[in-house]
Amino acid sequence: MTRLLLALALLLGIAPAAHAEDGYDLWLRYRPLAAAPRAVVAAQAAAILAPADPSPSLRAALGELDRGLAGLLGAPPPRATTPRAGALVIGTPAELPRLTALGLPLARLGDEGYLIRSVTLDGAAVTVIAANTDIGLLHGAFAWLRLAQTGARLDDLDMSSAPRIAIRMLDHWDNLDRSVERGYAGQSIWDWWRLPDYRDPRYTDYARANASIGINGAVLNNVNAAPDMLTPRFIAKAAALADVFRPYGIKVWLSVNFASPKVLGGLPTADPLDPQVAAWWRAKADEIYAAIPDFGGFLVKANSEGQPGPGDYHRSHAEGANMLAAALRPHHGIVIWRAFVYSADNAEDRPRQAYSEFKPLDGRFAANVILQVKNGPVDFQPREPFSPLFGAMPETPLALEVQITKEYLGFATHLVYLAPLFEEALDADTYAKGKGSTVAKVIEGRLDGHALSAIAGVANIGSDRDWTGSDFNQANWYAFGRLAWNPDLSSRTIAEEWIKQTFTTDPAFVAPVAAMMMGSRQAAVDYMTPLGLAHQMATGHHYGPAPWVGDLDRPEWNPTYYNRADANGIGFDRTASGSDAVAQYAPPVARRFADLGTVGDDYLLWFHHLPWGYRMASGDSLWNTLVSRYGRGVDAVAAMQRTWAGLDRYVDRERYAKAATFLAIQHREAGWWRDASIAYFQSLSKLPLPPGARPPAHDLDYYKALRFPYAPGH
Amino acid sequence: MTRLLLALALLLGIAPAAHAEDGYDLWLRYRPLAAAPRAVVAAQAAAILAPADPSPSLRAALGELDRGLAGLLGAPPPRATTPRAGALVIGTPAELPRLTALGLPLARLGDEGYLIRSVTLDGAAVTVIAANTDIGLLHGAFAWLRLAQTGARLDDLDMSSAPRIAIRMLDHWDNLDRSVERGYAGQSIWDWWRLPDYRDPRYTDYARANASIGINGAVLNNVNAAPDMLTPRFIAKAAALADVFRPYGIKVWLSVNFASPKVLGGLPTADPLDPQVAAWWRAKADEIYAAIPDFGGFLVKANSEGQPGPGDYHRSHAEGANMLAAALRPHHGIVIWRAFVYSADNAEDRPRQAYSEFKPLDGRFAANVILQVKNGPVDFQPREPFSPLFGAMPETPLALEVQITKEYLGFATHLVYLAPLFEEALDADTYAKGKGSTVAKVIEGRLDGHALSAIAGVANIGSDRDWTGSDFNQANWYAFGRLAWNPDLSSRTIAEEWIKQTFTTDPAFVAPVAAMMMGSRQAAVDYMTPLGLAHQMATGHHYGPAPWVGDLDRPEWNPTYYNRADANGIGFDRTASGSDAVAQYAPPVARRFADLGTVGDDYLLWFHHLPWGYRMASGDSLWNTLVSRYGRGVDAVAAMQRTWAGLDRYVDRERYAKAATFLAIQHREAGWWRDASIAYFQSLSKLPLPPGARPPAHDLDYYKALRFPYAPGH
Repeated sequence: MTRLLLALALLLGIAPAAHAEDGYDLWLRYRPLAAAPRAVVAAQAAAILAPADPSPSLRAALGELDRGLAGLLGAPPPRATTPRAGALVIGTPAELPRLTALGLPLARLGDEGYLIRSVTLDGAAVTVIAANTDIGLLHGAFAWLRLAQTGARLDDLDMSSAPRIAIRMLDHWDNLDRSVERGYAGQSIWDWWRLPDYRDPRYTDYARANASIGINGAVLNNVNAAPDMLTPRFIAKAAALADVFRPYGIKVWLSVNFASPKVLGGLPTADPLDPQVAAWWRAKADEIYAAIPDFGGFLVKANSEGQPGPGDYHRSHAEGANMLAAALRPHHGIVIWRAFVYSADNAEDRPRQAYSEFKPLDGRFAANVILQVKNGPVDFQPREPFSPLFGAMPETPLALEVQITKEYLGFATHLVYLAPLFEEALDADTYAKGKGSTVAKVIEGRLDGHALSAIAGVANIGSDRDWTGSDFNQANWYAFGRLAWNPDLSSRTIAEEWIKQTFTTDPAFVAPVAAMMMGSRQAAVDYMTPLGLAHQMATGHHYGPAPWVGDLDRPEWNPTYYNRADANGIGFDRTASGSDAVAQYAPPVARRFADLGTVGDDYLLWFHHLPWGYRMASGDSLWNTLVSRYGRGVDAVAAMQRTWAGLDRYVDRERYAKAATFLAIQHREAGWWRDASIAYFQSLSKLPLPPGARPPAHDLDYYKALRFPYAPGH
Repeated sequence: MTRLLLALALLLGIAPAAHAEDGYDLWLRYRPLAAAPRAVVAAQAAAILAPADPSPSLRAALGELDRGLAGLLGAPPPRATTPRAGALVIGTPAELPRLTALGLPLARLGDEGYLIRSVTLDGAAVTVIAANTDIGLLHGAFAWLRLAQTGARLDDLDMSSAPRIAIRMLDHWDNLDRSVERGYAGQSIWDWWRLPDYRDPRYTDYARANASIGINGAVLNNVNAAPDMLTPRFIAKAAALADVFRPYGIKVWLSVNFASPKVLGGLPTADPLDPQVAAWWRAKADEIYAAIPDFGGFLVKANSEGQPGPGDYHRSHAEGANMLAAALRPHHGIVIWRAFVYSADNAEDRPRQAYSEFKPLDGRFAANVILQVKNGPVDFQPREPFSPLFGAMPETPLALEVQITKEYLGFATHLVYLAPLFEEALDADTYAKGKGSTVAKVIEGRLDGHALSAIAGVANIGSDRDWTGSDFNQANWYAFGRLAWNPDLSSRTIAEEWIKQTFTTDPAFVAPVAAMMMGSRQAAVDYMTPLGLAHQMATGHHYGPAPWVGDLDRPEWNPTYYNRADANGIGFDRTASGSDAVAQYAPPVARRFADLGTVGDDYLLWFHHLPWGYRMASGDSLWNTLVSRYGRGVDAVAAMQRTWAGLDRYVDRERYAKAATFLAIQHREAGWWRDASIAYFQSLSKLPLPPGARPPAHDLDYYKALRFPYAPGH
């Protein structure tokens, strides 16, 4: 007995390296429970009662319950054919007619929601996981396993849940050569070359992970789309992935290049009003749906950063989108059209341009078009105000696009928990229909009564063994999915449940790690772009600070465009005396942003140009405050290091060491951000550092000379 | 008890996906043994007796024994402090003085060899693993574990082994952006961006795998070398890898760009005779050795395929190599200079050019220069005659370079076991000093009395979970290492020991799989380039057939250059009536190749241009024979598929399915090779297919039109 236990321990622990805690299992770890929680789970999973001839989706649900319980308890539960005490009963009423008598309130759960309830069934105390569809059951199974993994009570459950947003999507910026734009976790997980023949088991694990948090769509390829994606060879590859994902309720979508009819079809034009062009797209849509009957639709980046689009033919975005929508409509497909549009030829302040372009098109889009808007009006900065398009286009379903990969937030190695950023965006109040007109309500379709609704996260997933380049980046994928399902969840709740599943339920670990995660985004704001600064990153790869750069071809690519720093002061006047970007917001919001008394520190320099000596509410000068904010960010990372250093006994050696190493990198780079930024701004302000502030480690020329020719993701 | 066994089974089997048989463990799998072999191993590993204060290398050896025995037996053996029955005693006589009395013959084992012997020590029957160094002990530990894993008798051992070649090296063609030239297994395993901070545990597993087969060097970067590799940032990254590899006896080497003094140093020239250039390289060498005290040296591709070199300054390869050698000499470093040189400006037949260039330089190289010669005179074709440089430069240590990655052999998905190719190269008789002057003897230094000796394999390793893009490609890495250690090993023996460690020792599996592997290289020759054809692959990426291509800038890049096919016949006349490449071989070899009666089928069209109607020894025409050889290759792959299909019960599901899928790809592509090649050659010969031969599936234009824009590795 002892020998076997030893063997067991050894096999779990030291033996082959493949079995190390390498992060592959994500939040679906299912490690053996300690005695007390084990008893709790075992009592409510004494057996599984399920329909006799399960569909692929229900098989996936049952497989996950078996896998999870085998991990947590040591063995999967036996199957039961009649209710018995402690059984998990999983099925739709159609599949398990004995559930009908329970009168479960399934009507409002739709096609994806689920209900979990402790009931008495045929005299036995059981837990029922019910839904209207087998996909709903799959979501319910994952929800029950989440409860089991996080130490919840399981004997008196009564919960139901349905997604508030219909399309919950990961956008992969993956190229066909397997490079990933803004990817920091290895190559694309899509092994295009060996698809469609080889279906890497990892694709199934990807689908499991997404289904567990409710993600139901994946755009497989980069929005800077290669026309080749629409060739028969690549459609077949996408179809193979769709086959893998289908049981998990995940649809495949594709980014398309607007010039495809020219490049692939040999047509002389891609003009959306040309009948041949429309016919080409109709035939292409038919071809795709023949291979992928449940294909989601097209994501389009048009007339943006060099991509072709309807503007090449003097057509509007609506004319372009509607032509594609007509091709997809017979198949119930959807066009997601990106509003991320700005132009070097446009002298208008960049954060104003998307609104100026799209607002007049409100009401002009076909019924199966969604306009996808980034959370902020610039580009995934550590902090931005919400985009003024939210609330401004009531006739158009708007999707929210956030970036899960950390292009501007330290790449893979900085620990920055993004849920507070996502939450800040979702909770932002547009005042479009009075107070409480949050971005969340806009994108849920609730504010303006749209049936279509969508949210997209630019994926941080790659071929790295840990999927996302670090274990903590997994939390951002997780949080995106959880918030997409329910925008009302709190960042902290999500952090805690993620920590419990990913590491341990021990409160001595959960509490400090949750606190560390919760503060991490503000830390990044502080050491990179405090007080409303933005886009201060180095050119192209966006790695590290370069606030001095002002010589790029397009004015709005330059950090100096955003900081407007000179001898007198810093910040961008976007009030009526400046670019008047504030005017694009609803009046209460515009007033708040325009008024120095109400704008607050977070957006101060986004909306205002101020002298270095400007007195902050604290009484200190802007200059001194700016310097101290950088330092506060660095200090916060040092505090994160100290927190983590005290937690080694709760974490396996491999993941502990990796996070510790990455925090050290983050601390070094936070210091670099601080020092380089201060060195530059001091060269303009000519002001002394506030008392006690450490001078930059090097002179400005040192920072200006740094080059990173092989920075990833570019 | 039963419940625990069940738990054990579950934990080994179904539970989390991370624990699937994903190929990560390579041949170091250490899965639990069945009862009978378990008893054999347990009896000889009842305890481990080792020196009290082990060095890092000995710690690695002991760690591996613990890991291996924990896997095989369920628990690692206890440590003993005095000999006891069944103990494994591991140490050098210096570390374990009690070994001295055994009078073990260690003198000839050098710094890397080992001895394993069953002896009586202080009255106890034990197994001794002894060596002169702790690296030798590490090799011995791996050798003993190989015996244990392959089901050898362990109670009466008396073996010793020392490497026959001093430098046994993997050449990684890995770029600093993590792409891999001719890599088909994902990205570079070197995560340059996060080095030197983050030392991925995978680096240690890489070192373990290499040490287990005796590889003792790694060139980290592509021979098409980026100058940036020699910047301080990248030297620090290389040093971190060297730190990881050092306990495993593996030295780090770097490919260098000959123009580095210009590109990095700002010098006006890279002329090797310029004192400033020499001084730059000396300083750079000093800088590298300060970071990596045991740095191996430089690998140089110069004046080849666009790379800079001494020829840019009208200096010879010897002048270039010797300048670098002088920089390394104070540190005992070595220059490995590649002989893979050919020129578009040179009208000489390509396989003659390296000989013409280097043969006159024999005796002109410094003492710490090795000339690295590819096995054949062209470029890693499925089959080539040996390079005429072997045996032709007695004053110069020659290294053999083979390609483990399968640039011209179907990429990752074709099952082609390369040991027979390596063996064919090693066993080739140069007749340089009479019969028996094999390539192996040349590169071992035995033929000409050189102390320096080296062999290099272009690695097939990448970030893919299975390391090499398929489980069977692991055998090529394994076989390279084993043959580098001992060129006399047979391909079949290596295949069998690899199969036993990687899959199972069951003879019902080992015998058919070994047979399948042993025939696989000839199959590839037959379906790609039968009868001595070469370089018929598509341009650039080398994926698939393109024998019709004749319009490339450089004549010797064209398949038509090699096949010389026209209405009258096919093949390249390299006898005295043609390019006279045969004259570069020793007379007995030259006569054999030049004579149609002795050249044999394998090199027939390499050396001879023959009419389509030429009568083969079989009596059949060349045309009919050519067609049937293509078909034989396709049929051989079909037979491999049938073999594998019968073996599913011996292999886990994941690895079984992967190999089955890849064999299906291989069969389809073998058919494509056959059909496209026949379609083209028939367009010239105008001859009917032999009776029973299936016509090509498509017409020639179909094959010519195929394009593969995202083919990997290019």
